[in-house]
Amino acid sequence: MADDFERMWADLEPIGLSASSGGYFRQPFESAERELAAWFAEQAAARGLDVETDGFGNAVAWWSPTAADDEPALLTGSHLDSVLDGGAFDGPLGVVSAFAAVDVLRERGVVPRRRIGVAAFVEEEGSRFGQACLGSRLATGAVSWDDARGLRDRAGVALGDVVDGDAGSLLLDAVSTYVELHVEQGRDLVDQGSAVGVASGIWPHGRYRFDFEGEANHAGSTRMDDRADPMLTYAMTALAANKQARLADQRATFGRVEVAPNGTNAVPSRVAAWLDARGDGEQAVADLVAAVERQARERAERDGTTVTVTAESVSPAVWFDEELIESLRRDHAVGDWPVLSTAAGHDAGVLHGRGIRSAMLFVRNPTGVSHSPAEHAEADDCLAGVEALATTLERLCG
Amino acid sequence: MADDFERMWADLEPIGLSASSGGYFRQPFESAERELAAWFAEQAAARGLDVETDGFGNAVAWWSPTAADDEPALLTGSHLDSVLDGGAFDGPLGVVSAFAAVDVLRERGVVPRRRIGVAAFVEEEGSRFGQACLGSRLATGAVSWDDARGLRDRAGVALGDVVDGDAGSLLLDAVSTYVELHVEQGRDLVDQGSAVGVASGIWPHGRYRFDFEGEANHAGSTRMDDRADPMLTYAMTALAANKQARLADQRATFGRVEVAPNGTNAVPSRVAAWLDARGDGEQAVADLVAAVERQARERAERDGTTVTVTAESVSPAVWFDEELIESLRRDHAVGDWPVLSTAAGHDAGVLHGRGIRSAMLFVRNPTGVSHSPAEHAEADDCLAGVEALATTLERLCG
Repeated sequence: MADDFERMWADLEPIGLSASSGGYFRQPFESAERELAAWFAEQAAARGLDVETDGFGNAVAWWSPTAADDEPALLTGSHLDSVLDGGAFDGPLGVVSAFAAVDVLRERGVVPRRRIGVAAFVEEEGSRFGQACLGSRLATGAVSWDDARGLRDRAGVALGDVVDGDAGSLLLDAVSTYVELHVEQGRDLVDQGSAVGVASGIWPHGRYRFDFEGEANHAGSTRMDDRADPMLTYAMTALAANKQARLADQRATFGRVEVAPNGTNAVPSRVAAWLDARGDGEQAVADLVAAVERQARERAERDGTTVTVTAESVSPAVWFDEELIESLRRDHAVGDWPVLSTAAGHDAGVLHGRGIRSAMLFVRNPTGVSHSPAEHAEADDCLAGVEALATTLERLCG
Repeated sequence: MADDFERMWADLEPIGLSASSGGYFRQPFESAERELAAWFAEQAAARGLDVETDGFGNAVAWWSPTAADDEPALLTGSHLDSVLDGGAFDGPLGVVSAFAAVDVLRERGVVPRRRIGVAAFVEEEGSRFGQACLGSRLATGAVSWDDARGLRDRAGVALGDVVDGDAGSLLLDAVSTYVELHVEQGRDLVDQGSAVGVASGIWPHGRYRFDFEGEANHAGSTRMDDRADPMLTYAMTALAANKQARLADQRATFGRVEVAPNGTNAVPSRVAAWLDARGDGEQAVADLVAAVERQARERAERDGTTVTVTAESVSPAVWFDEELIESLRRDHAVGDWPVLSTAAGHDAGVLHGRGIRSAMLFVRNPTGVSHSPAEHAEADDCLAGVEALATTLERLCG
């Protein structure tokens, strides 16, 4: 099993890798990500699994030695896309581990009484069209194709011009349970000294676009008092978001900024910036965003600028199936896995919210760093993750 | 004369105009700016002026009814390029006024005893290759083609791949005096109730690139305390620059920012930002930049980030020729024009620094706004500027 796992991992390593940063660029429907989709089909074919896809490109490779197509099926997997300049593990580890777990079950001689599917969802990161978990949202009907087709990437290209997602997807219709394995995106498992952990749930999460409008002007000849500079309003807002999140022990980040006209010798006319806000409860996130927005407005008044805040996506808290969590954490040879919540969104959260009983396994990340080339997981921990996943699947389909 | 002026102005109005913003995009060697270069050649041809250009595209249209080519020549003009989303007047007003002043001299029956050239310099704004007054710097030898050819635009295109500027230019060899007319980029003439003013000099000016480096990470799952977020260091630095400039009564602007990876759900790894700093003396600018850099470094230590500051261009103060200033301000029918300094850089400053006796006329800007669609000058003020320019030229070439 270790060899197969490492071979799959070696196949993926060069795809979308930036030689300069060491990070990955695997945006949906672009060449690297399409290469990953082809790799997925090859892996399925090599195992005799039947690949089913929907109009958006979400794919499931079915292992169904005995079961009928309409019986409640068991799904495992993750996604293959990355953030811009992301790490190797976020997403692909779950897909590789899913294929490897099928291999383990076959080696163990397991003949599942339910179909088992290996899933790869598209645009989980929202790095191209701005909506996280877009593939799983479309596949579960949480977002309609009519609402999604008009989304545009940074170059202004509409999603509907890139892919025909209007397939009236039935991909997940028979799925009753989903288990997603994922690299941990923090340091809880490092602190607890455990290779594997089980997710209790996902913090609520929102993306908010802040549009700061001022007046373009000459950076040299315009007196400081005569300016309406939206960069200042933005800068204070970014600092306020950080301070509020620290005070409330939540998370707030401004990681994306666009400036117009973005010239060295011009006071900007407009700064657009995106706030990523997460907290341990929905009220906590709402309070956090309200506090940031209030401070932005106060500063805007001083700067002679304006602020418009648009909620681009808001995801409620997800608490995974308690029974499933309990069985996952106890069902392994070396003692109970720890249970932890996460502030990162996942397709498992979307599926669970749409009535598919879901849970997640995390694999320890020694750096704690994710969405970065520094993201990592040791091979032994990955293999422990595959074993835990295989054992879980065996019990669930036995 | 008013008709000719308005016809030229109407010709230029649509070129490079953005329908959405009402601003101008006239970046060097791109289509709008090349159209302006063709317009310049047409205007020269219509007046029987001989156009001479150098390898970079700087152009002079010569009116030389009597004078030999090697006698000290008189130059007037400005530039045709704009900042990104800039105004209609910054640059073109000086070129249109120069042609109109030639028309006025002919109407007056003046036969100049020195050659008079109408000049259009390329890339005055530095909006494409980042160096302000690049055309006049190349034409005067202030910058060598070997140093300039490797400059790159935002798309990574090298200047040397766009244009062959290695012409060993002799364009300005016979020029002894330069008078540039320009729209005012502030409100001094509004405050003083004068249509026209004379520049005493140009404040020293520098562009400094600040590279803030941190560690990319997941915007959700990374605890606030575990981050090294360069956006925070940048934000504090932008606010510090504004505060320092206010305290010292100088100018500091962060108008251009680039973020990597610039994703909503990723703590950035890197923020690059450009400080435009100007002051009423060279020490004042140096002190301002040092104060901003010191505060950036203090904040970087708190944030766990690093800061690197690179001076991309530093222009010393320019004080125009005193005799020329005195004659310009007194040489008009309605009383003395006011004399004012400016914090905006100009080709006249470059030429003066390279031994060509120079001075400038400003035309009142009722909004005070420049580098913006709101930049403006009333037709009557523009015509007063042309009259003042023509009178100056007549005296200088008589």
